[in-house]
Amino acid sequence: MGCTGCIVGYLKWLIMTQFSDNKEQLFIIKIGGNVIDDPNQLDSFLKDFANVTEKKILVHGGGKIATAIGEKLGIQSKYVDGRRITDDETIDLVTMVYGGLVNKKIVAQLQSIHCNAIGITGADANLLPAKKRPAKEINYGWVGDINGDELNSATWKLFLENGLTPVAAPLTHDSNGHILNTNADTIASVIAVNLSSSYHVTLIFCFEKNGVLENVNDENSMISKLTFNEYLSLKKSNKLFAGILPKIDNAFDAINKGVKEIVIGNSSQLSSLINGTGGTKISLQ
Amino acid sequence: MGCTGCIVGYLKWLIMTQFSDNKEQLFIIKIGGNVIDDPNQLDSFLKDFANVTEKKILVHGGGKIATAIGEKLGIQSKYVDGRRITDDETIDLVTMVYGGLVNKKIVAQLQSIHCNAIGITGADANLLPAKKRPAKEINYGWVGDINGDELNSATWKLFLENGLTPVAAPLTHDSNGHILNTNADTIASVIAVNLSSSYHVTLIFCFEKNGVLENVNDENSMISKLTFNEYLSLKKSNKLFAGILPKIDNAFDAINKGVKEIVIGNSSQLSSLINGTGGTKISLQ
Repeated sequence: MGCTGCIVGYLKWLIMTQFSDNKEQLFIIKIGGNVIDDPNQLDSFLKDFANVTEKKILVHGGGKIATAIGEKLGIQSKYVDGRRITDDETIDLVTMVYGGLVNKKIVAQLQSIHCNAIGITGADANLLPAKKRPAKEINYGWVGDINGDELNSATWKLFLENGLTPVAAPLTHDSNGHILNTNADTIASVIAVNLSSSYHVTLIFCFEKNGVLENVNDENSMISKLTFNEYLSLKKSNKLFAGILPKIDNAFDAINKGVKEIVIGNSSQLSSLINGTGGTKISLQ
Repeated sequence: MGCTGCIVGYLKWLIMTQFSDNKEQLFIIKIGGNVIDDPNQLDSFLKDFANVTEKKILVHGGGKIATAIGEKLGIQSKYVDGRRITDDETIDLVTMVYGGLVNKKIVAQLQSIHCNAIGITGADANLLPAKKRPAKEINYGWVGDINGDELNSATWKLFLENGLTPVAAPLTHDSNGHILNTNADTIASVIAVNLSSSYHVTLIFCFEKNGVLENVNDENSMISKLTFNEYLSLKKSNKLFAGILPKIDNAFDAINKGVKEIVIGNSSQLSSLINGTGGTKISLQ
């Protein structure tokens, strides 16, 4: 029995380590303005989110409410070459609106449906340290670029292991006392890459379409699985909606850096994105 | 030696348990509008706060900035019989300003001086569950009354035991999806009472005076130690500034409920309030 036992044990170990990463599931879900700006959609999405029984993190964008409040306060949105500039007034505005109003309303709603949410910006517990983007041709102002290797993974894990669900606003900080504006897609990707060494991470980008569409005018043309080679050939043929290209590039980058699964899909269909029956799966092969 | 050893051990245990509470020190410090509205004062206070080496919690009030931003947004402060009313517009305003702008700026500043701050409202991690004040003669709107026994002490302790410094905005939640406006003095007292079973708590109320003044016009008339009997006789003689009476009542209530030490003093003298050489100490005897 001795040697047979050894072999069986070795095979079990081999299966455990080689064919399964034996890590706990973590869903990182990003929502954007289309959900945040619509109370009914948000309400419905948050119910689906609260029902996800696995460990989870929500990353939210800003929505139009910051622009609306900014206009009332006399703060005009500023653009240089089509890129938004975050000046002193604007960083205060988004700190207030994204970090306060939007974030805390989501947290309070999740708490009411038994999801132990904790709202954070990147300054809180130093969860998302970043660097102010250097002013070159364009001075973007208080915009932060985030380096996944510098993420404070111990505190993210502390929260997750103690039953908390982080809800992240699209704000980081420069460790010199300034809050920085950072793209929510990027934040979600960076967290996903960093926590992939500890969890089996599924990153879900929610937006207003059902997934990546071969023909942007035809909701039925959704691609259910997109490999890198297919993506390259679709890109070559100019068939994809240009606006989605950075999202897909971002996704392949995250997959290359260790994220197990990435799904792009409709925020109204969260449960099917979670169980693998909806949206576009981004896959290396 | 056997029996002598037993007796020495027993005596040591007796001293440990009877004559010392053997608990770790925790400072809970409350600041109000006078500090928050003045960037220089705030900067100086936060440096002193970051230098406190023991476990600590900061509770901040609102300041005038909410009123200023509210006016720009066309939200008028509303009062009934001199009491502020928190209607739908106002709760959004204070969630934005207290929970976003004020809270996150403090957190980012503390992070820059090596204090691992985490900004919270009562909704975050369900840290401060409260009940909406029932509408009787006055409908206060979205105002929360907080019950210390319902505080989520496990998560407060999780943060403190993991090197985090909570920074609390004066906001609670009703567990039905609504943020509530709650007095910052009350929040500080309630946290102090609740955490007194786990820590040796010193509660420090900072304001613009050096302490409780016997004569409100004479800064040199500060009372360094105020016992309950002295307080009663001063109150009878109408010598105390009326505005400070609720603060002192609150303080004696907290002392009665187990808080070890309470100090009322000037936010510009934090280190002397911490080391026991400044401010008015509230004492049962």
